[in-house]
Amino acid sequence: MLTLFHQPLCPHSRFVRLVLAEYGLATRLVEEKFWERREEFLMLNPAGTVPVLVEEGQPAVPGVSIVIEYLDETRGADAGDRRLFPTDAGERAEVRRLASWFNDKFHAEVSGPLVNERVFKRYMTREQGGGPPDTDSMRVARHNIRYHLAYIGWLVQTRDWLAGERLSYADLAAAAHISAVDYLGDVPWNDDEAARNWYARVKSRPSFRAILADTVAGLPPSKNYANLDF
Amino acid sequence: MLTLFHQPLCPHSRFVRLVLAEYGLATRLVEEKFWERREEFLMLNPAGTVPVLVEEGQPAVPGVSIVIEYLDETRGADAGDRRLFPTDAGERAEVRRLASWFNDKFHAEVSGPLVNERVFKRYMTREQGGGPPDTDSMRVARHNIRYHLAYIGWLVQTRDWLAGERLSYADLAAAAHISAVDYLGDVPWNDDEAARNWYARVKSRPSFRAILADTVAGLPPSKNYANLDF
Repeated sequence: MLTLFHQPLCPHSRFVRLVLAEYGLATRLVEEKFWERREEFLMLNPAGTVPVLVEEGQPAVPGVSIVIEYLDETRGADAGDRRLFPTDAGERAEVRRLASWFNDKFHAEVSGPLVNERVFKRYMTREQGGGPPDTDSMRVARHNIRYHLAYIGWLVQTRDWLAGERLSYADLAAAAHISAVDYLGDVPWNDDEAARNWYARVKSRPSFRAILADTVAGLPPSKNYANLDF
Repeated sequence: MLTLFHQPLCPHSRFVRLVLAEYGLATRLVEEKFWERREEFLMLNPAGTVPVLVEEGQPAVPGVSIVIEYLDETRGADAGDRRLFPTDAGERAEVRRLASWFNDKFHAEVSGPLVNERVFKRYMTREQGGGPPDTDSMRVARHNIRYHLAYIGWLVQTRDWLAGERLSYADLAAAAHISAVDYLGDVPWNDDEAARNWYARVKSRPSFRAILADTVAGLPPSKNYANLDF
């Protein structure tokens, strides 16, 4: 049995949830308020971040990129045609490059600041880093998303999916981060039609259903968040 | 033939250089002033960061964690006993966790700010982000290093090497980041004897020689930087 410690609007947690759903892996979800730095949780992940995947009888696997490598190593071969990671080293590098583009760069420039300012800070005490949202940081993030959307649009005009001819970790990483920003209504969908069409395809997958059903108390999703025809 | 685009004091570049040296892979080193955002370089890595590894006839492999995964996939099996990454999925997760601890967390809290403020900013124009060092950011980094050294000390009191009984990527990642900070004279070696003994062991390896010979124009290394008995 797998257990995932996560936060519903954390883009990294969402990426792992999508992968688990694509592979049909039944997983117990535990919502971890990581900002409380619970002692038992810090024993699983001394860095104190979500997501953390725990497989019964195994040491905890912390951190999004470590979890997806672990899932490929333990479940990838069994997934056959549905495997989300190519087997050629060069193609793997390209999938990792794009997954890192969203998990690291997009997160630093867009999804991290927006989710932190608009969601996590609502629940944190002053000591934990809470307080009113930093509107400057949100403004910069809303500006930055435009060039990322253009990059997605540019990629999918030459390839079926972000990293090539097949759905991969790269698409799920990108869609996970965008979905968190879309929940908040901060994706300028009219900017790039190719990017929107790509997201519509990913969003329509059964693996996305649970994510589209997420609602955070006191913060309803944007109007078209769960709409497949947005 | 391999080519590595790097910066001498960039800790991520140093980690890759150590791995290449451990595996005895002859590599052409190209010093890339990544802050100039050279167009040809951005074609290799749109994120504009070092290190980037280029293998003749293959697409470029950008980013430290992607490079080390690529080197394991293409060179790991041939390395036999000297392989720097275990084969068991759980043990790989632990090596990745620690490599990420240094490449991401230590870099964000210690080596990134120190190298950026004290080294890279010297070469950048105002527009590129240059200017006088931010002493607040340096002070925080010098404070943060103490708990990281204690963490290393704690790990090597229960294990031979950081991730277990064998030298791994985890040790080389940690040592690479520490070596950059040590060049600047900002490692409080008297704080933790176990951490110092571990670093002395890594520093004595032949793979470290080229790194200890690095000198940056106008910024000589700290007194004991290349001293194996520090």
